[in-house]
Amino acid sequence: MSYIGYKGKSLDFLKKNMIDIGNQVRVHADLTYLGVLMPRYEYSDDNHIVLKLKNGYNIGLEIGKIKKIELESSPATKKENMPKPKTDLALPKILLISTGGTIASKIDYRTGAVAPALTAAELNATVPELSKIANIDTEVLFSEYSENLLPEHWIKIAEKLDSYAKSEYSGIIVAHGTDTMQYTAAALAFSLAGFPKPVALVGSQRSSDRPSSDAALNLIAATRFLVETDVTGIFVVMHNTSSDDEIACHWATRVRKNHTSKRNAFQTVGGSPAFIIQDNRIEKSKLFSAPTIEYNPKIKFDNRVALVKYYPGFEPKVMEYIVGSGYKVIIFEGTGLGHVGKIMYDSIEKARKKGIFVGMTSQCIDGMVSMTVYDSGRDLLNLGVVPLGNMIPETALVKAMWALANSKDSADIHKIMRENIALEISD
Amino acid sequence: MSYIGYKGKSLDFLKKNMIDIGNQVRVHADLTYLGVLMPRYEYSDDNHIVLKLKNGYNIGLEIGKIKKIELESSPATKKENMPKPKTDLALPKILLISTGGTIASKIDYRTGAVAPALTAAELNATVPELSKIANIDTEVLFSEYSENLLPEHWIKIAEKLDSYAKSEYSGIIVAHGTDTMQYTAAALAFSLAGFPKPVALVGSQRSSDRPSSDAALNLIAATRFLVETDVTGIFVVMHNTSSDDEIACHWATRVRKNHTSKRNAFQTVGGSPAFIIQDNRIEKSKLFSAPTIEYNPKIKFDNRVALVKYYPGFEPKVMEYIVGSGYKVIIFEGTGLGHVGKIMYDSIEKARKKGIFVGMTSQCIDGMVSMTVYDSGRDLLNLGVVPLGNMIPETALVKAMWALANSKDSADIHKIMRENIALEISD
Repeated sequence: MSYIGYKGKSLDFLKKNMIDIGNQVRVHADLTYLGVLMPRYEYSDDNHIVLKLKNGYNIGLEIGKIKKIELESSPATKKENMPKPKTDLALPKILLISTGGTIASKIDYRTGAVAPALTAAELNATVPELSKIANIDTEVLFSEYSENLLPEHWIKIAEKLDSYAKSEYSGIIVAHGTDTMQYTAAALAFSLAGFPKPVALVGSQRSSDRPSSDAALNLIAATRFLVETDVTGIFVVMHNTSSDDEIACHWATRVRKNHTSKRNAFQTVGGSPAFIIQDNRIEKSKLFSAPTIEYNPKIKFDNRVALVKYYPGFEPKVMEYIVGSGYKVIIFEGTGLGHVGKIMYDSIEKARKKGIFVGMTSQCIDGMVSMTVYDSGRDLLNLGVVPLGNMIPETALVKAMWALANSKDSADIHKIMRENIALEISD
Repeated sequence: MSYIGYKGKSLDFLKKNMIDIGNQVRVHADLTYLGVLMPRYEYSDDNHIVLKLKNGYNIGLEIGKIKKIELESSPATKKENMPKPKTDLALPKILLISTGGTIASKIDYRTGAVAPALTAAELNATVPELSKIANIDTEVLFSEYSENLLPEHWIKIAEKLDSYAKSEYSGIIVAHGTDTMQYTAAALAFSLAGFPKPVALVGSQRSSDRPSSDAALNLIAATRFLVETDVTGIFVVMHNTSSDDEIACHWATRVRKNHTSKRNAFQTVGGSPAFIIQDNRIEKSKLFSAPTIEYNPKIKFDNRVALVKYYPGFEPKVMEYIVGSGYKVIIFEGTGLGHVGKIMYDSIEKARKKGIFVGMTSQCIDGMVSMTVYDSGRDLLNLGVVPLGNMIPETALVKAMWALANSKDSADIHKIMRENIALEISD
């Protein structure tokens, strides 16, 4: 268990030197390295060991070149000193709800890996600047990496937010993993349409104990945004550039994670972010304005919705399986202006005959679907496929789950999917 | 048939005035409009008729406000004068293979719609500038919108190109629809790896009889690229900006259509285009260089490959259907650094037990997957999921179809998928 991934020569080397995974070690080779022995994974030969260095990066060291390896004393688990920040009655109150993810995590020194660990209270204590902007209460709702979140988690977050709709808080931060943050943001934007307070989903791309972490700056900017602006609704607050001088605040339904690792991975699709937050000012984009809607939460989702990405060689039998398996909505990620190949027409016809709503978005992600320009689009319209304007595919998926749970029938779903509820569609 | 989409008042209006779809009409309302009556589609009320104006745009006219509608004489089908361009023996020879798409199409004046119509010869004649750069032979291979292309079409194109591998042509243009151009480009890059001539896939986002068409400029730039540079291999040549002054030449495996309608919809993911073509120069990017490979065409694809995009609420039963339906490769479009929810682990285990190759890409599209950073990634590595570096999902799909067709076993597929053949992967 403690030698995950090591085999052959490297395993023998570690056993001989009595070094375990998670140990802090000093390795004398070409240079001297101080770090934590990491587990190894696939594609590893048996000639290297892996250390996580202090700067957060992993390095592979060839055992043939190691002159000596020494066990350092394990780092004393610092009993962190976390005084509660003093309450300044002149400052507004903000609530921080933690759901997990990198922003609420630190490196596990047993395995060298990032694991969700920090409570929201610890998080608050690690960013002392926050206490000068607002009095922040914290609450841990759950602690999950966002790749493991399901629609039931969206419901938990939405219900929690709803319980604070009439509270004294000026705004609410939701600390969230970045992997599926855009899906949660969209889910909140629909289920809590018209929410009377501003809500900022905040994540980080690098954990808070790494020097390049974006956690603190994203949190500070989000807090300033909640306190200094008078907008309401759901937003995502993350770095806007690869440097630390600009934070973007995105509309919940128009944001997408477009890079696996950059700090400015999140982008507003088809326009500018709603706000840009800089040192001394918060600038509002003129391009979008959200529809005004009376707050009437509808916190239900039904996941009998399939997102189907079309590509050359896609076999209609997969679509037919979906049509025959109880799904009520199919959202296509079509090609170009909103097309799928003729090979799909029969299965679309079957879906429509069963009363399944079939909506069209584009795998181009940016731009409008426009299905009257080419024969293919017109054929699909005639088959009853519904164009979804400039809705991004992931937002369309989430909206469909919400529309399905809150509809009496297919006509209802149609109406909801074409309606602009939270800036998700225009055409 | 000739009143598609019209109903109620608008249908009565058209019948009364004896106007059919496809007729050229003059409409006197607030202004006088000259255009072609278009069919109508879903969501239409019955108060409007739709004209396609000369500039290519459609306009809806309220029948209550129409003072008079007159049938114009149908435009005499211009007997186009297409002299064969003179052969200039000093110029290099280029072959243009037409496969269909907007670039090879014009507006059908019966329906007002865009339909593939122009032969490659007509196309050549409509861009007379080409004859000053090269002597261009043309050949129509097939005429399909690219949303209808299948791996068997990739094979036809690849076999045709292979037949010209030792020809006297300096380079070859493939006129192609833009919807799935990136898939075809990747298919050619793998099946014809090491091809000894430069090949430019060229499309257009607006048909060639619209004033905003990008067809001519893309063709001219592609021809110059083929004639003036000495590279070999497969490229995609399209507008680089929304103006006409910059054309980009993308590596086949790193290009993606990222906008439904803009002329500069195509972008190189994770870097600069291979070349930028401007008025008087062709600039090469320093960022990438393609691996050198001996030409040994392997023109086979096997589409027992599924691209599975993971999202919250994705039901494992769809994955289990794929596992049980004869698929040999599953490519995930995971979240973030290359994750899927724990809910998928059982079905991944089943896939692996059946010997199915499971590869990981990211729906972020840009950036590397990195599966040793978080627990989720490590769990997936331990289940035997193979990280695919910075391969974009669509390229990974095409590569997998090719790898499957050209492999003896799963180990072979693994080796091919991790190997850099045409700039598709680095890590």
